[in-house]
Amino acid sequence: MKESTLPRIAVTMGDPAGVGPEICLHLLSKEEILKECVPIIFGDACVLEKVASQCSLALPKNIHTDLADINTPGILDIRAIHTGDFEPGTINAKTGHAAYSYLTAAIEAAQNQTIDAITTAPLNKLAMNQAGIDFPGHTEILADRTDTEDYCMMLTSANLTCSFVTAHVGYAEVPALLTKERILDNIKLTHRAMKRLRSREPKLVICGLNPHAGEQGLFGNREEENFIIPAVKAARELGIDIEGPYPPDTVFLKWRRETTDAFICMYHDQGHIPFKALAFEEGVNITLGLPIIRTSVDHGTALDIAWQGKADANSLFEAVRLASRLACGP
Amino acid sequence: MKESTLPRIAVTMGDPAGVGPEICLHLLSKEEILKECVPIIFGDACVLEKVASQCSLALPKNIHTDLADINTPGILDIRAIHTGDFEPGTINAKTGHAAYSYLTAAIEAAQNQTIDAITTAPLNKLAMNQAGIDFPGHTEILADRTDTEDYCMMLTSANLTCSFVTAHVGYAEVPALLTKERILDNIKLTHRAMKRLRSREPKLVICGLNPHAGEQGLFGNREEENFIIPAVKAARELGIDIEGPYPPDTVFLKWRRETTDAFICMYHDQGHIPFKALAFEEGVNITLGLPIIRTSVDHGTALDIAWQGKADANSLFEAVRLASRLACGP
Repeated sequence: MKESTLPRIAVTMGDPAGVGPEICLHLLSKEEILKECVPIIFGDACVLEKVASQCSLALPKNIHTDLADINTPGILDIRAIHTGDFEPGTINAKTGHAAYSYLTAAIEAAQNQTIDAITTAPLNKLAMNQAGIDFPGHTEILADRTDTEDYCMMLTSANLTCSFVTAHVGYAEVPALLTKERILDNIKLTHRAMKRLRSREPKLVICGLNPHAGEQGLFGNREEENFIIPAVKAARELGIDIEGPYPPDTVFLKWRRETTDAFICMYHDQGHIPFKALAFEEGVNITLGLPIIRTSVDHGTALDIAWQGKADANSLFEAVRLASRLACGP
Repeated sequence: MKESTLPRIAVTMGDPAGVGPEICLHLLSKEEILKECVPIIFGDACVLEKVASQCSLALPKNIHTDLADINTPGILDIRAIHTGDFEPGTINAKTGHAAYSYLTAAIEAAQNQTIDAITTAPLNKLAMNQAGIDFPGHTEILADRTDTEDYCMMLTSANLTCSFVTAHVGYAEVPALLTKERILDNIKLTHRAMKRLRSREPKLVICGLNPHAGEQGLFGNREEENFIIPAVKAARELGIDIEGPYPPDTVFLKWRRETTDAFICMYHDQGHIPFKALAFEEGVNITLGLPIIRTSVDHGTALDIAWQGKADANSLFEAVRLASRLACGP
C-alpha cells in the first residue's frame, strides 16, 4: 500500500452527542474506502472509545495528537471535550463548541496543505449557538475562515444533483436574497463543479421560485422575469448549457432527471425535498466556491438514535469517496 | 347495465386549445370506467369532433344540448366556441372563456343535483384572465359560486396524499396566510376526507414551513411555534391523530409515506414536488370543503403537445374513478 500517494481526508467527528462518532468508527473499518484515501478523524479519542464500547464497534487505533505522526487511517485527538461533560442525544453548549473545534482544526490543516480535503459529520446548530458560535452551519464557518464570498451548497448522488442559491435561511427571507448576480454566481459555480465531476460540458436546469414558475406573472412578484431569466441569459452568453426556469413541481420528473446533470434550486427545500424522497441514503453535500475541497453527509445529528449503534454510515462513506475523487482531480 | 344506479359525473372539457379535448375522448371509450359511472363531457362537440379526426380517435357519439336527454356516456354541447376562433396550443381569451363556461354549467348542474360530481380537465389561467375572468383556478371559481369559505386542495394517489394550507399564491405571499385557524381548518377538512376514503381514523402528518422545520427557531420567524404547533394541539384536542411539524425535506421518506394517510403542506410546491417526483401519472386533485364533489387531473393544459394524440389520459381516468367512489359514498 503506497500510503503517500493516497489523498489525506480530514473527517470532522461532528457533535459528540450525535451520530457522528459512530459513523466515523464505521468509516475507519471500511476496507474499500481505506484503499482510496487516508481518513483522519478530527475528534476526541475518549468519545470515540466510549461510543465504540457502547455500540460494540471496534475500538479505534492509531490515536495521535500531532497530524504529522499520522500516515495511516487514524484519529487526531483534538481533546475538546470529556465524556463526563455531556449526555448522548442531548443539546449542549460544550458539544457544540467541540464540534466547532474539530472543524476549525481541519480548516487550518487544509490551509497548511497537511490534508487534501475535508469531510464533515453533522454538527448541531443549536448546540453551537448555545456555545456562542453564531453560524448557521459548517458552510458559513468554512466561508468565513477562508474569506470566501461566492459559495454555495450542492447535494449530489448518482441520480440527482441540486445546487442552492439560498440554503440555511428562513422561508420568508428567500425572495429578498434572489438577485441576478447571486443566481449567476450559483450557475457558474455549479457549471464548474459539474464539468469537473463529469469531465464534459454539463447540462443544467434552473427552477422557478413560484408555483408553476409564476405562470407568466400570474403568481408571485415576477421573480422569474426580474432575476432568474436575466441570470440564465447571462449564463448562456458565457457558453453555459442551461434551461429554465421551469415549474418547480414538474422539473424533477424522471425523464428530466435522466437528462440533467444538475438542478439550480432557489431555496433549501425546493431541492432537498425531491433529493431526500428519491436518493436519501447515498446523498453527499459539497460546498462549491471554497479554496478547500469540502464534502459532507446530507443528514443531521439524529440525536434520537445517537450512540445506539443504529446510525447508517453510507452517506459518510459516499462523502469521503467524493472528497477523494475531487482531491485527486481529473 | 343499470344506468340509473351509476353516478353521473360532469367532466368539464377544459381549455379547448389544450389536451383536455383528447383526454375526454379517451375517457368516453374507456370501457372499465363506463362500468362505474356515466361521464358526461361538458364541452364543445365541434372541438371534440375536430380533435378526434386530427388525433385518429373515435368520433364522439351521443351529443345533446339538454342534460335531461343524456342517460348514457355522452356530450353536453355547451356551444361556447367555434373551431375557427382559436389555434390549438396557443393562449387565447376565447378558449379561456369557453373553459369557464363549461365549469359554470357543471357547477349549476351539480347544484340542481342533475349530476353527482364534477371532474375537471385543465384550464389555462392566463387564457381565462385574458377573458377578464379573474380567478387563479378552478378551485376558487367553485368556492366563489358555492359561497364556500373553508376549502382546500388535496392531491391523492395510491402512495401519497398531500393537502395544502395555501396553494395558488406566489412564494412570498405564503407566510402571511398561515394562521392557526387556517391550518386547523385544513387539518379538519383533510381528516374528514381521509376518514371517508379510508373508512377508518386516518393518520395525519404536518410539515413545517422553514428548512428543518425552523430547527427550534434558528431559521425563519417561528412560524412553526406561532401557528403550526398551536393548530396541531387544537386538532389533537378534537381527537385527530396528527404528528409534526416535521422538517419538510425528510418528512416524505419512504417509511413515513407508508405509515401516513395524508400530509398537511404549507405551500403548493412543498407537496407538489414530492408528489410529482414520486406519483406523477396517477395523481388526482380533490377540492375539500365544497358542497359539491369535485376532482381534477393533476396536470396542466400541456399546450406544447395539445391536439397531437400524445396526451396521457391516466390522471383523468383516476380523477373520474375517485369522483365516482366519493359520489357513491361509504
